[in-house]
Amino acid sequence: MAFDDLQFPRPTPDPDDVGHDKTSFTDVIGGSATYASLSASTLAPCRVVAVVGEDFPEAMLETMRARHIDTEGVQRAKGRTFRWSGRYHEDLVGRDTLDTQLNVFADFQPSLPSSYAATPLLLLGNIHPQLQLDVLDAVEKPEFIVADTMNFWIEGERELVEKLLTRIDALVINDEEARLLSGEHNIRKAAAHIRRLGLDHLIIKRGEHGALYFSDAGTFFCPALPLELVSDPTGAGDCFAGGLMGHLATQAQINDSAMRAAIVAGTAAASFCVQAVGPGAVRALQNDALHERVKLIRNLTRIEQTSS
Amino acid sequence: MAFDDLQFPRPTPDPDDVGHDKTSFTDVIGGSATYASLSASTLAPCRVVAVVGEDFPEAMLETMRARHIDTEGVQRAKGRTFRWSGRYHEDLVGRDTLDTQLNVFADFQPSLPSSYAATPLLLLGNIHPQLQLDVLDAVEKPEFIVADTMNFWIEGERELVEKLLTRIDALVINDEEARLLSGEHNIRKAAAHIRRLGLDHLIIKRGEHGALYFSDAGTFFCPALPLELVSDPTGAGDCFAGGLMGHLATQAQINDSAMRAAIVAGTAAASFCVQAVGPGAVRALQNDALHERVKLIRNLTRIEQTSS
Repeated sequence: MAFDDLQFPRPTPDPDDVGHDKTSFTDVIGGSATYASLSASTLAPCRVVAVVGEDFPEAMLETMRARHIDTEGVQRAKGRTFRWSGRYHEDLVGRDTLDTQLNVFADFQPSLPSSYAATPLLLLGNIHPQLQLDVLDAVEKPEFIVADTMNFWIEGERELVEKLLTRIDALVINDEEARLLSGEHNIRKAAAHIRRLGLDHLIIKRGEHGALYFSDAGTFFCPALPLELVSDPTGAGDCFAGGLMGHLATQAQINDSAMRAAIVAGTAAASFCVQAVGPGAVRALQNDALHERVKLIRNLTRIEQTSS
Repeated sequence: MAFDDLQFPRPTPDPDDVGHDKTSFTDVIGGSATYASLSASTLAPCRVVAVVGEDFPEAMLETMRARHIDTEGVQRAKGRTFRWSGRYHEDLVGRDTLDTQLNVFADFQPSLPSSYAATPLLLLGNIHPQLQLDVLDAVEKPEFIVADTMNFWIEGERELVEKLLTRIDALVINDEEARLLSGEHNIRKAAAHIRRLGLDHLIIKRGEHGALYFSDAGTFFCPALPLELVSDPTGAGDCFAGGLMGHLATQAQINDSAMRAAIVAGTAAASFCVQAVGPGAVRALQNDALHERVKLIRNLTRIEQTSS
């Protein structure tokens, strides 16, 4: 299928999730764990550790379980779920936070069900780095550990973030976070600096400009699909990480080829996420649809051997 | 050779071209025709139509001839060569024009030597679209015609630019120019709009974020090499177009595979250009060095078939 043949679906705000008009949405279900697990479950079963408040719809947890996401590690606490509100800039890349309510996040202490102890692949979502380290300690010798973080923790908890780096295999951050963490503006210098902190695999996301992957095996670049319709970038980074983990879970060995293909899978998953408001597109995402977009991305950069 | 093994050369200001200190350079030899022909000649012999003033160094014309660039079409006119001065923004992408002196450009009427009439591949550099049309009329049935243009002509001579579009095969512009020409912000919508004006092949350059190519065969994306050292983006677009034409000149047939590989060659040529001030890097560029970077770009997006 040629790229231009694809009928990209119109953005479809999930009727369960969305209020109000076309450019402003309230009470959209979010959360890194929601997006990442829905995305990963397109490719492989997974487990979630998270906390939700009394307001988090049971229907979403049922959707997750129907997709072979183990929710035993989801705690329901008194009070409301973590809430963020903000305004995206016209380019849908920059954003201003209007309000952050930690709610049940404030006192969250992740506790892992004993059935989770032998989880082979671990994604540490964006949260306080001490909680990431706590979860890491609770899992017995994971084979491959990926973490996300953000400016807030890099600025406020740099020592813990740097400690985390030495204990994980791969970090997934965006270019601004990479610049902040390294003090380098140039993206290759930033990557080299961060990897010298004790990190084998670094993935730098650049939104619509794709993702760069740095490791001892070399550098890989995966473009984003140039989409005509982008509705809501919220959760795209989490879907990227989820798709990446889901692909790795299908592989016998995590080597450079597997990582490259995993980054393509993550990019494909994120391309669905941004076309709907909230998790509407990824909650129904199926393996076949994801693989169609994986093919599109492969075709986008395909270069044949030529005579010269 | 793995990407990270490459020792990118330090920027080497050409001692013949450059004055002053490390961030400000005066009297640097420029010109679309200079950059594009030096770049193209790395891969194939070529011909130049241009005008220079009395101040343009004969040594550069000799360098060009030594690289199998036919300079019979270079007119030397009374007065000074066209001069531009400006200041690049810190990101080396945006720039402000401080001064433009048309000089010998003001009265330039391109005249083609009769030996040029049968030129098979034609690159119409960025100049008044009427002059581009005049040159086009002077060449007998070129097989493939590529043109460049800029905001100034799109805003001031839109009718002529649109007329040009219907007579060429491929247009090479940057994303801001594509947005201006189409009235669309989204890059896929912009591309579709411009192609509907009567254009088969559209290449949209995005600086450090690579280039997109749109045609009936589909969409291709070529990343730029993520360089540690970027000295001067001047001429990069011209080197891109020159490398593209040079590669096409080596091909028996211009099809989708040839175009994709030509865009990679153009991207590789541009990567040398930006690492020196002025044409210092491309004036000495050899086929082997160019092909090393072509390999790096191929490796940057290489995705192997995997089991899933």
